[in-house]
Amino acid sequence: MNAVPLSPTDRSTIKRHRDRAVTDRAALYDVLDAGPVCHLAFVTDDGSPVVLPTCYGRDGDTLYVHGSSGAHSLGLAGAGSEICVAVTALDGIVYGRSVFHHSVNYRSAVIHGVGRAVADEEGKLRGLRALAEHVAPGSWDYARRPNRKELAAVSVVALDLTEAAVKVRTGPPRDGTEASSSPDVWAGVVPVRPVAGEPEPCPHVPMGVPVPEHILRRVGGTTASRQH
Amino acid sequence: MNAVPLSPTDRSTIKRHRDRAVTDRAALYDVLDAGPVCHLAFVTDDGSPVVLPTCYGRDGDTLYVHGSSGAHSLGLAGAGSEICVAVTALDGIVYGRSVFHHSVNYRSAVIHGVGRAVADEEGKLRGLRALAEHVAPGSWDYARRPNRKELAAVSVVALDLTEAAVKVRTGPPRDGTEASSSPDVWAGVVPVRPVAGEPEPCPHVPMGVPVPEHILRRVGGTTASRQH
Repeated sequence: MNAVPLSPTDRSTIKRHRDRAVTDRAALYDVLDAGPVCHLAFVTDDGSPVVLPTCYGRDGDTLYVHGSSGAHSLGLAGAGSEICVAVTALDGIVYGRSVFHHSVNYRSAVIHGVGRAVADEEGKLRGLRALAEHVAPGSWDYARRPNRKELAAVSVVALDLTEAAVKVRTGPPRDGTEASSSPDVWAGVVPVRPVAGEPEPCPHVPMGVPVPEHILRRVGGTTASRQH
Repeated sequence: MNAVPLSPTDRSTIKRHRDRAVTDRAALYDVLDAGPVCHLAFVTDDGSPVVLPTCYGRDGDTLYVHGSSGAHSLGLAGAGSEICVAVTALDGIVYGRSVFHHSVNYRSAVIHGVGRAVADEEGKLRGLRALAEHVAPGSWDYARRPNRKELAAVSVVALDLTEAAVKVRTGPPRDGTEASSSPDVWAGVVPVRPVAGEPEPCPHVPMGVPVPEHILRRVGGTTASRQH
């Protein structure tokens, strides 16, 4: 699978900062694994753009999002119209000698395609499993799985990962040539990463129930979903 | 200013999880301060949605984004068409007893409006200052400010904060009623926050140049831009 290119079309070909474009599928997976939240854009009936944050999951080359089966946004996203999904991981703040060369280090993926409503129970379960294992690895086996009533209450939309643009910025600011003219100015990068803190039990959990291993494993680490 | 409501129109009125809707302006500022990256959505000439991550800044009730003056996306965003901007801060992973009640704790703002290209130098400087001080507080006074050539090379787009929806989820999973039927299952929240690490100097910075106070202040803290 890793050999399949991202097949960029014209709109998924990065035109600005081409040096930041990455074209292999492993890089796309890497960004998507950084989740847990994506930003889903669609066009409303009156032609206006809307972007909403939502959780997502990946199973092979399919991205899944979900929501209440009554949610208008999910209905639009799964109605066979074009949607666009962005996932962005912030890796650092870039301090240049000049304001102009301030930036951020990041990894981002922008995926274009037509959303597909998943109607059958088996497909929904596959999507919800991908979502659960992305946001909370280990939960599919530990927690109670969705029952028929819950499956009916949730909409699942699938998006094929066929048209995507991956962009990555790393390293120091690009104004090193100004170093000699500003010898007393500090420039560089402040790295940033999401860190998970101590688990806070729900007040209804009986005393003595231990925090399971798959959750403890997150503490102090980043929120990237695939630590295994 | 804090007394001005978010003036929600129909599309900025939250229909799903109304309990998560927040309608005061201070909450909007709180989410926007959590940056530094927003997701900007617009509609292309052929009617397709596009969402891109980009840095932003806020000055009063105006949001600013910027980009290369040749960037097609910024051109579209500032051409008087509808745009939509989302800012999302992830605060935690919510582990339910059931997969269905897994969720994330977050604060999000979704802003609708018409982007306005900022053409004059004074306006551009105001926008760039808001951007710099948002992403890298203290840099406007410490680093070299944009010169005329740099100002010409950058496009700045302004968006009024008049139509926005703020949504916040906090607290434990909502399936506490299942606690008695799953007495051995742990449920709760793993808090998540972005943490800044040790500054990494650019290789061109001369030996002995100290990391300035406004940057040191970030280390170990979150990336929220307004710590003052």
